[in-house]
Amino acid sequence: MIETVQATEALRRQVSAWRAEGLSVGFVPTMGNLHEGHLALVRDALRQSDRVVVSIFVNPMQFGANEDLDAYPRTLAEDQLKLEAVGAHLLFHPSVEAVYPEGEAACSAVLVPESLTDILCGASRPGHFRGVATVVAKLFNMVQPDCAVFGEKDLQQLRVIERMCRDLDFPVRIIGSPTLRETDGLARSSRNAYLTESERAVAPALHQALQGVAQAVAEDRGRIDEAVASAVVDLEARGFRVDYLEVRDRLTLALPEPSADRPLAVLGAAHLGRARLIDNVAVPA
Amino acid sequence: MIETVQATEALRRQVSAWRAEGLSVGFVPTMGNLHEGHLALVRDALRQSDRVVVSIFVNPMQFGANEDLDAYPRTLAEDQLKLEAVGAHLLFHPSVEAVYPEGEAACSAVLVPESLTDILCGASRPGHFRGVATVVAKLFNMVQPDCAVFGEKDLQQLRVIERMCRDLDFPVRIIGSPTLRETDGLARSSRNAYLTESERAVAPALHQALQGVAQAVAEDRGRIDEAVASAVVDLEARGFRVDYLEVRDRLTLALPEPSADRPLAVLGAAHLGRARLIDNVAVPA
Repeated sequence: MIETVQATEALRRQVSAWRAEGLSVGFVPTMGNLHEGHLALVRDALRQSDRVVVSIFVNPMQFGANEDLDAYPRTLAEDQLKLEAVGAHLLFHPSVEAVYPEGEAACSAVLVPESLTDILCGASRPGHFRGVATVVAKLFNMVQPDCAVFGEKDLQQLRVIERMCRDLDFPVRIIGSPTLRETDGLARSSRNAYLTESERAVAPALHQALQGVAQAVAEDRGRIDEAVASAVVDLEARGFRVDYLEVRDRLTLALPEPSADRPLAVLGAAHLGRARLIDNVAVPA
Repeated sequence: MIETVQATEALRRQVSAWRAEGLSVGFVPTMGNLHEGHLALVRDALRQSDRVVVSIFVNPMQFGANEDLDAYPRTLAEDQLKLEAVGAHLLFHPSVEAVYPEGEAACSAVLVPESLTDILCGASRPGHFRGVATVVAKLFNMVQPDCAVFGEKDLQQLRVIERMCRDLDFPVRIIGSPTLRETDGLARSSRNAYLTESERAVAPALHQALQGVAQAVAEDRGRIDEAVASAVVDLEARGFRVDYLEVRDRLTLALPEPSADRPLAVLGAAHLGRARLIDNVAVPA
């Protein structure tokens, strides 16, 4: 079974021992309920570093009051088996009380500029990226890794973490890892477990819609508004409640400038039954 | 002359080389214009660690729009001589452009809870402690020290940094160092240079006023309001414009609870001519 520690002191002791041997350390922060997408991040970290720490922590600070904090699936024993099988070296599984001894509302916070945190998912989840940036800063200070791997499925989260690291000079290299998909295109996500059988059959339409917009925009950047509007109508007709569907600069997440020839992405979030699904695709160059 | 580096890469190279030798690293962040008070911090750091890094950086993010950012004294050559003489090992002197490549307003920030940052100096200097916490987080990530030394003269700053470190799990031990004073009691400060000769003669009255309140409160905790009011009247009569003068819990900076037997401090800030002087003293137990 993978070695599992709850206390920051025990974590730091192990990482220090590795450092003393001259070994590099990679880090994959997760909320657990691990699927193939997470394991792909661990494999990326293993390729980049001698030892890999995975954390499992369902972070209350990044959940809104009406969100699924309590319902979020917790499957530690299965997660441990998967991490052992993939070859991760240490699982860090702190308690909420250890991470937020005075409660998350009383904790100092990391604020990434609003231009990055108040758009897209941040617009419908106020405070979400404050919670994400804060817990990742804390975890970076606990683990002190050389690199950390984040999935591109949560592209805005990746950009927020990159920005925090650059702005606050964290000595951690951030690695983005491509989205892993089911054979029908649905992005792997722990929240897919919320889908009923019939919703699961409809779910890949989100990815198809983003692909459709990406293809249309690749052919003609002047057609963004039209392509997005038609995709939203199509998704709503299939039973999605669309939260946003937008074309953005893939690196800065700024609104695209018509004249600039920068890489673009199409990002979307939509409710389907109990699940809120998010996904994004690159616009072909 | 003390080795001086401007680039974070050069700083990290030197610190890594020390780490590889098994040496511990202490850190003293300053805004330069070094006086005996700063050198006492360096001596403390030297007692606690094998190598000591001092930074000199006048941090624009902690100055308000109407404050003395431009006037703040910059005396690098003299500072280097003093640091060499006291035995510091490395001076880190980054440019504003290196610390805030996109400007400080566009930089991610560290927010310590308002209960600690919006009182005392924070009440009259909005955003000040946001700037302090952010630059110290950045410097900690650049230097990666084992310990860092801060003067107790800036007691609120010390408490803000302690809180930030604890809340965000920075692996840095924070050490508070006693206030160094002139023989007449005036706390050493770079801003004392703003005083005219006659103001300098009056300046120790701030410390005397704080001492008077501390003595009165030590004798009778029920007399706080009366002692503070009389001290303020006395200071204003001598030409000070009092910003605040308060009795607070010395560790949490919360308002004192009459029944509790916790350590107290008297903190004050007052304008005298061009200078804004701050000081604090412990209430005798």
